[in-house]
Amino acid sequence: MNDAATATLTDLYQLTMLQGYLEQGMTAPAVFEFFVRRLPPQRNFLVAAGLEQVLDYLESLCFTPEELDWIGRCGRFSRAFVDYLAEFRFTGSVHAMAEGTVFFPDEPILRVTAPLPEAQLVETRVINLLHFQTLIASKAARCVLAAPGRSLVDFGLRRAHGAEAGLYAARAAYLAGFAATATVAAGIRFGIPVSGTMAHSFIQAHADEETAFEHFARAQPEHAVLLLDTYDTEAAARKVVRLAARLRAAGIHVRGVRLDSGDLAAHARAVRAILDAGGLREVEIFASGNLDEHALAALVAAGAPIDGFGIGTRLDTSADAPYLDCAYKLEEYDGHARRKRSEGKATLPGRKQVFRRTDADGILTGDILALEEADVPGRALLAPCLADGRRLQPSPPLTAIRAHTARELARLPPALRTLEPAAPYPVTIDPGLLDLVRRLDEAGP
Amino acid sequence: MNDAATATLTDLYQLTMLQGYLEQGMTAPAVFEFFVRRLPPQRNFLVAAGLEQVLDYLESLCFTPEELDWIGRCGRFSRAFVDYLAEFRFTGSVHAMAEGTVFFPDEPILRVTAPLPEAQLVETRVINLLHFQTLIASKAARCVLAAPGRSLVDFGLRRAHGAEAGLYAARAAYLAGFAATATVAAGIRFGIPVSGTMAHSFIQAHADEETAFEHFARAQPEHAVLLLDTYDTEAAARKVVRLAARLRAAGIHVRGVRLDSGDLAAHARAVRAILDAGGLREVEIFASGNLDEHALAALVAAGAPIDGFGIGTRLDTSADAPYLDCAYKLEEYDGHARRKRSEGKATLPGRKQVFRRTDADGILTGDILALEEADVPGRALLAPCLADGRRLQPSPPLTAIRAHTARELARLPPALRTLEPAAPYPVTIDPGLLDLVRRLDEAGP
Repeated sequence: MNDAATATLTDLYQLTMLQGYLEQGMTAPAVFEFFVRRLPPQRNFLVAAGLEQVLDYLESLCFTPEELDWIGRCGRFSRAFVDYLAEFRFTGSVHAMAEGTVFFPDEPILRVTAPLPEAQLVETRVINLLHFQTLIASKAARCVLAAPGRSLVDFGLRRAHGAEAGLYAARAAYLAGFAATATVAAGIRFGIPVSGTMAHSFIQAHADEETAFEHFARAQPEHAVLLLDTYDTEAAARKVVRLAARLRAAGIHVRGVRLDSGDLAAHARAVRAILDAGGLREVEIFASGNLDEHALAALVAAGAPIDGFGIGTRLDTSADAPYLDCAYKLEEYDGHARRKRSEGKATLPGRKQVFRRTDADGILTGDILALEEADVPGRALLAPCLADGRRLQPSPPLTAIRAHTARELARLPPALRTLEPAAPYPVTIDPGLLDLVRRLDEAGP
Repeated sequence: MNDAATATLTDLYQLTMLQGYLEQGMTAPAVFEFFVRRLPPQRNFLVAAGLEQVLDYLESLCFTPEELDWIGRCGRFSRAFVDYLAEFRFTGSVHAMAEGTVFFPDEPILRVTAPLPEAQLVETRVINLLHFQTLIASKAARCVLAAPGRSLVDFGLRRAHGAEAGLYAARAAYLAGFAATATVAAGIRFGIPVSGTMAHSFIQAHADEETAFEHFARAQPEHAVLLLDTYDTEAAARKVVRLAARLRAAGIHVRGVRLDSGDLAAHARAVRAILDAGGLREVEIFASGNLDEHALAALVAAGAPIDGFGIGTRLDTSADAPYLDCAYKLEEYDGHARRKRSEGKATLPGRKQVFRRTDADGILTGDILALEEADVPGRALLAPCLADGRRLQPSPPLTAIRAHTARELARLPPALRTLEPAAPYPVTIDPGLLDLVRRLDEAGP
């Protein structure tokens, strides 16, 4: 994304504040942390995602001549400020949780330490990148947990909120355990397996359905998944049986069929029976159409003979919770901890670390949110990943992130793995951090 | 957006079907229409948006060498097919409703007529572009209707679903009547007025709030909007009064203040009283924080002295209805009307037109959905805008689209202009179209 890397993917006030900071010489180190304030009611945990794109952004961030020209002409900024922006690079450091790590409210998943203007300018895009992929990975993880052993495919590009949303949703869903995406550009860009079936229009463009099936199967002799519900689902399944017998001699094998409307469990049972009776036991049944984790769980619970699911709109828009209440907040400036006390939006000050404990089986038992230097039991989740504006090591391959996510989901307490709202996972605030809050509140603003 | 223009922003099945069509020589003209099946319960009407981006896409659509290479190597496509894609251009035509036009379920807002493979391939991105901007323009229009005379600003980039969503949300909101956006890149790209205030971090980075206000006001001597809620809103307002008196001599004027938490109506009244008593009657009050059209309506009804609103997350994600049930469906192939009969998703066949009638005051009284050539009273809403793959005229300036939207909203029947669910607007299916449905159903698939 060329445009997506531009430094002007930011709010005007970031530039306004930068000019103010620079006029006052306020360029000492600042510490900002990104965290989620509270879970949507429909989520028991979140899955961190988007770090690779944040690091790409920070490493490449600069203003183009066209952007500098616009900023210079807009009537709000000095020549000296535009000259400063012309040389702007991100020179700070980042600590973060590995992508695919599960996390909970108040826990920072990313910390930026940089000269104040640099740490400030990046706020908007850092939130934009972390928020969306975390949102989708967390929704996708619920789908994965709801349909164990089934193959899940992202079908959502068309109703994702723009191109970047479609691409990053494919990445986030794969990272969370989806098998594939239908989005070709995501396959090219991220190496995600791509998968697809056929649309109703292919059937409708033909004078009759069986001819359409045959043409499609001949064009995809090993991959064809035939869509059954354009006119009459069970009648279409019988056509597939007749067709498969004819095509077998030509070395053409129908791989599967897709159901996209009506009572999916009932259609799947009827179609399975027709296929099996026709000797097509190896032909798989895929289902799609307004699916989400609840629909998946219901179909699995009903014993519907469905091998794979295409999940689109409700995944790519995270339809039941289309945003997270998240923030990127100043926690320290020039060596002094800072705390915002706005009603309902107060922050925990200082550079923080998340310490996680597990039981003998590796199941998570509780986190402690503490100041970075605190001596607290548990595994520290935030690790350095960028310093002096450069990555400390390459980002892990997406397949490695996906494997990490699978291990993380396996270690969730059982109550958090269900779709039902569970009692909150225990996140304790360390007494040292509470002391700092008290001292800052006593000192006043 | 460079990547955003790529032809691989599509579902794999489009490519698969294209190979099938080409093997069978099925390249006759096809007609696809984009429409919304039903309104979300929280919407009484929709506002068409995104056409300019669809036309940009269709005019520039081609496969890059890297994409062709990937398609050739992925194991599903023939050499002949890759060679075909290398020459692929969109050569068809488009009829559409003007951006900013209000519309209702079942009414096509865009019709593509092109050789079947071309009309098929573009499905995914055409939906992706029209769906999102229509979604946001429709939400933004409700905000505009809920807060007449107030200045509304898009604050949503950070929680929009990616960069493109943030940019297009800014465009769609402005088109629907918003005054400005905070997103700098949207100002550069679309010429939308940009506007901004300051963040809590600016206050927090300073040892005390009043110094922070002064530094910010000196950096923005005409534009400063000071954020009051970092520690204590009313105390901050009193600091603004003291500061303004001191700065006036230096020719620096505070433009406004912003409230971002707590009871916004109560804070606004208290702050207004403090400012007025301090001689700052001209200083405006802006409010933000989890706002949507319902919050705006409540604040307006309460008589809260708020001059402008920043609306972010709930606008840019269309949080109460994050997607529309929309489709792009084949209605005719090679001169024959087509109809999909899937359960709950049946389509109306043929090339259609929407005819709209108004009363003597110009208020909408009802639409008729008919075949294109039908002789039906009313103004035809779909007009040709692209032929032989090229625009027939430049897209209108965004300010003209915005003026058109304002006229459209003014002509809505009063019940549809409220936030409450209204009786559906009358959209009648012309008997000629119903006849075609009956004939196709009798003929069978």
